[in-house]
Amino acid sequence: MEIRFSGKRIKVFAGSIRSPDGSESYREIVRHPGAVVILPVKEGKILLIRQYRHAIGKWILELPAGTLEEKEDPEKAAQRELKEETGYEAERLTRVMSFYSSPGISDEILHVFLAEGLREGKPSREQGELIENLWIPLEEVLEMVRRNEIEDAKTIATVLYYSSFLL
Amino acid sequence: MEIRFSGKRIKVFAGSIRSPDGSESYREIVRHPGAVVILPVKEGKILLIRQYRHAIGKWILELPAGTLEEKEDPEKAAQRELKEETGYEAERLTRVMSFYSSPGISDEILHVFLAEGLREGKPSREQGELIENLWIPLEEVLEMVRRNEIEDAKTIATVLYYSSFLL
Repeated sequence: MEIRFSGKRIKVFAGSIRSPDGSESYREIVRHPGAVVILPVKEGKILLIRQYRHAIGKWILELPAGTLEEKEDPEKAAQRELKEETGYEAERLTRVMSFYSSPGISDEILHVFLAEGLREGKPSREQGELIENLWIPLEEVLEMVRRNEIEDAKTIATVLYYSSFLL
Repeated sequence: MEIRFSGKRIKVFAGSIRSPDGSESYREIVRHPGAVVILPVKEGKILLIRQYRHAIGKWILELPAGTLEEKEDPEKAAQRELKEETGYEAERLTRVMSFYSSPGISDEILHVFLAEGLREGKPSREQGELIENLWIPLEEVLEMVRRNEIEDAKTIATVLYYSSFLL
């Protein structure tokens, strides 16, 4: 494969690859540094953010999340992104699971952390990051997932994992 | 933004974008034609596939899925991908939900279909598609999700949605 784009966040490779069975085929692959997802929970409520996403050109509801910096420990990244995006700091972060967002095309892996013992502070959002905090009761979040009002895969997967296995 | 890579499946754009608040910032965006996810259910079992994913360099367990062809109807794509990847045809496909796989970086949207009334046939896998069918009882699939042995976001989200809301 050859590198076809080298950006600040992603690299794109394209070309012929050999499969474990020896066959060759063409693929396009996006290399990504990985990311973290944070599930902030307090008194039966979940902290979601309403965020403008340029890639899809609209506002959507998501859990706080962000890209790993170079060689950054995922737990440190979860604490950093939670603070930057929402202003909150967590006394306890617990690793929940990791998953690939789109393994047919990308190596992006997301590490999910449950955040508890939350203290409010001031966010430090990046230029162009338009974000609003929303504390919503878990039952209501689940209803929003059921009605597909939440359209973000990592948020659907994480909220349902929490309600299915961690309560 | 400028186009920086134009492939068979994805296009990559990079450059300055203007946010709804008027601020400008740099972004990298992957444009994707969208995809379908199929949840094949029969007698309390789920059909998963074990598939070699070049982007992550390993075999993982996933629901059948595939990229939309140009202007293809998602339901037709679901039927086509189910047949191509697993050999099965479904009497009934029911739209479940849609979600974005990675809205911070990509516009890829996945449309999820429940597939029932399944008839076995012969798959027609593409070159380099290494796939094995596995029918697994739902309870066992949920346990694999809980233990994070399933590492694919769309599969985690879809299986938990099914067990939480459709049973």
